[in-house]
Amino acid sequence: MIRYLHLAGRLKEHIQMGHFAPGDKLPSVRQLAAEHGVSLSTVQEAYRVLEQEGLIEARARSGYFVAQLRERIARPAESQPPQRPMDVSLWEDVLDMLTGYGGETFCEFQYAMPIMTAPTLKPLLKSLYELNRHRAQDGMSYGNIQGDLGLREQLSRLAAGAGSHLEAGDFVVTSGCQEALSVCLRSVAENGDVIAVESPGFYGAMQAIKAANLKALEIPTDSVAGMSIEALKLALDQWPVKAILVTPTVNNPQGYVMPLAKKQALYQLAQEYDVAIIEDDIYGDIAFDYPRPKTIKSFDTDGRVLLCSSFSKSLAPGFRVGWIAPGRYRDKVLHIKYVSSSMCPTLPQLAIASFIRQGGYERHLRAMRVLYRKARDGMLKGIEACFPEGTRVSYPEGGFVLWVALPDRFDATRLAEQAKQQGIILAPGQMFSATGKYRNCLRFNYIDRDPDTRLAALKTLGNMMSANDT
Amino acid sequence: MIRYLHLAGRLKEHIQMGHFAPGDKLPSVRQLAAEHGVSLSTVQEAYRVLEQEGLIEARARSGYFVAQLRERIARPAESQPPQRPMDVSLWEDVLDMLTGYGGETFCEFQYAMPIMTAPTLKPLLKSLYELNRHRAQDGMSYGNIQGDLGLREQLSRLAAGAGSHLEAGDFVVTSGCQEALSVCLRSVAENGDVIAVESPGFYGAMQAIKAANLKALEIPTDSVAGMSIEALKLALDQWPVKAILVTPTVNNPQGYVMPLAKKQALYQLAQEYDVAIIEDDIYGDIAFDYPRPKTIKSFDTDGRVLLCSSFSKSLAPGFRVGWIAPGRYRDKVLHIKYVSSSMCPTLPQLAIASFIRQGGYERHLRAMRVLYRKARDGMLKGIEACFPEGTRVSYPEGGFVLWVALPDRFDATRLAEQAKQQGIILAPGQMFSATGKYRNCLRFNYIDRDPDTRLAALKTLGNMMSANDT
Repeated sequence: MIRYLHLAGRLKEHIQMGHFAPGDKLPSVRQLAAEHGVSLSTVQEAYRVLEQEGLIEARARSGYFVAQLRERIARPAESQPPQRPMDVSLWEDVLDMLTGYGGETFCEFQYAMPIMTAPTLKPLLKSLYELNRHRAQDGMSYGNIQGDLGLREQLSRLAAGAGSHLEAGDFVVTSGCQEALSVCLRSVAENGDVIAVESPGFYGAMQAIKAANLKALEIPTDSVAGMSIEALKLALDQWPVKAILVTPTVNNPQGYVMPLAKKQALYQLAQEYDVAIIEDDIYGDIAFDYPRPKTIKSFDTDGRVLLCSSFSKSLAPGFRVGWIAPGRYRDKVLHIKYVSSSMCPTLPQLAIASFIRQGGYERHLRAMRVLYRKARDGMLKGIEACFPEGTRVSYPEGGFVLWVALPDRFDATRLAEQAKQQGIILAPGQMFSATGKYRNCLRFNYIDRDPDTRLAALKTLGNMMSANDT
Repeated sequence: MIRYLHLAGRLKEHIQMGHFAPGDKLPSVRQLAAEHGVSLSTVQEAYRVLEQEGLIEARARSGYFVAQLRERIARPAESQPPQRPMDVSLWEDVLDMLTGYGGETFCEFQYAMPIMTAPTLKPLLKSLYELNRHRAQDGMSYGNIQGDLGLREQLSRLAAGAGSHLEAGDFVVTSGCQEALSVCLRSVAENGDVIAVESPGFYGAMQAIKAANLKALEIPTDSVAGMSIEALKLALDQWPVKAILVTPTVNNPQGYVMPLAKKQALYQLAQEYDVAIIEDDIYGDIAFDYPRPKTIKSFDTDGRVLLCSSFSKSLAPGFRVGWIAPGRYRDKVLHIKYVSSSMCPTLPQLAIASFIRQGGYERHLRAMRVLYRKARDGMLKGIEACFPEGTRVSYPEGGFVLWVALPDRFDATRLAEQAKQQGIILAPGQMFSATGKYRNCLRFNYIDRDPDTRLAALKTLGNMMSANDT
């Protein structure tokens, strides 16, 4: 490998491992050249690469520093949802978003799909088509009811990296994380039961609550630290909550990572009130921090945490490979999973298992973390430049979506209607609540199309809002 | 093509189209030779082929006749399940069967998987492999929430063959028929509602009833004509039934095809009492009759029939491509389908759509009908030869499973335990009821391994039963 790229790679690792923290000054060019026995220009080239990736920044006459996210725009305040269990509505909004827009589009900010053109995915695709060629018979039979054993062994390895000791037998493979969430809800709760959720929270989980005839109790949620433990405690005192459903590690839609101590506190509260926790970890592996943040499941000593995840955000949603680590609810989960869709297709499981085993998954995650972080930074700058005074925004610590709260006078649904005329597709915020809150909010992905297109789209949106304002 | 094979093929078509009925005398060799302008030996060879396939039989000094199933063993009498709604149990039995037997097996009679080594499946596998190679990007994205439009267009064509005019927009693609049934149950019924089912009936549907917190009301069912309309009417008078769930065309486990007039009567009764019908048509395309029998859905004028099916029995279960034609329940079905597992993988849908479009599906079905019918006939003979006096058996009109009722003194679960020691795996009958009836019954597939192995396994079972009897 070319020497400066090699050096850049090593420095990047150090930064990602946290050896240099955001804001830290990096060694001088001269110092680094001496340390690594390379020329000054090699170091300069390496720094230039890292600067382009947005990992470091040069300050005039001071040298290079690890980039820190400058929060020029305020974050959304802690949410204040209605403090009582509610029936979930808003399915029409979700359906409208899912069925997509038939016409030509300019920029699609509405979805939450990962980058799927990355060269690091190629070995996986190759393995999948070769399995289809040479092991077609395995693809035609029913597979193991719990999922392919080889995949579950790899899931066990991945879980270790998130702080949990789980055996292959502790997993149930599902058709994506949506099935995982749905099965878990039906396994821990019955008709009319109450589920505590983040607010805003993932619409797919909200709709699964609706479909299972359960009620959602939205808990005040902070855009930095997640669900309020104090508010949750009050809610548990007041209502017969059956389970807490949270996405604490790279939240959808806000992107925060709940601090570890708070994850532990949430677990302890669940113990105290004897309720289950359904932990949606679908974005956990694409947190920007490496090693990745630990799960709530990592504190689980009595099996009350049902960990749900999938490869839909870390690899691609089309594989439909998700899983549950259901703890003490294993028997019920296996039953509901079986009646929901029987076994999962075998070949995607085999392909992903071998991709993980051969290191391809780790390599892909490394590449994606860099891409997503850089895209986030660009998006934040774009929003800062184009959106009206008083806009608030979440600062994701992973993944590829963020949450925008416009000043209260704006109606996101109306803006989305207007934007659609220009081919800009938006995800209005109200479907991220049970009952149509967040009418001034939107979720944006920051990876559709290229940065220039995104910026142009943000400008168009900004102009629309100015025009509405006058 | 060799001349006698060509002639055999034409004769077979005539038989399958019903131009010659079972028991009909076929034209003499001389007559046929003259009609077709071929030699006597060509006709003799053609007849020999059909005889080997079990479609016709030679009678000494009388000539050739279309084979008819001789019912040497009595059929099971109409069932007499408890006439009240029950909670479904027996999940442990189902799970035990689904997780399979770890050791070496001699013959596996327990499952209901089609023949998947047929050469007529090859074009489908090739297309799937090529799609994985050349259209990998389509495989990675979320697909259409209702399923691939191209596939739904083909489903519309297939539905026409079963007597229904359905547009592409009338279908929702699911992850197999199990998801279809589960989604439909949840779409038409709520906590505690009653579902009328056949008895015996498919365990996967029974377990979906359990998982949705519904109750099963087993209706007396005849092994020739299906669910008793009289008994159903009495049940509808007495209980607040929300839906009737039936597999009227090639029933699982009994294999009967409900007569068309009775299908219509069932539909009219559902209208009269304003209940939904969930029609499981998963085996419909592999009925031995061609053209295939019409569905209950074909009578549906007010959208109360939710037709469920999949390619799991006609092609292979591993593709996990099923569908619902939900009629008036479309909105609810789409919601529950979405929360259950989000979208279905695209590439298997594309592959199957092109397989149907290019005629491969019809070709495969033709080949399978012949194979399955021949296998059924062999199995019936084997059971007649090996099983104890007083055994009753169903005479399937399609598919690859049949139902055996041993004399009452036999315990099928105990027999299954014993048989397992010899590597013969059985499906005890009790899981085909809500509450453990049919303890003397078993479901057998008649296509695992080869005919000689099956016969040897039946002999072993027969000997076991004789030994138990003494």
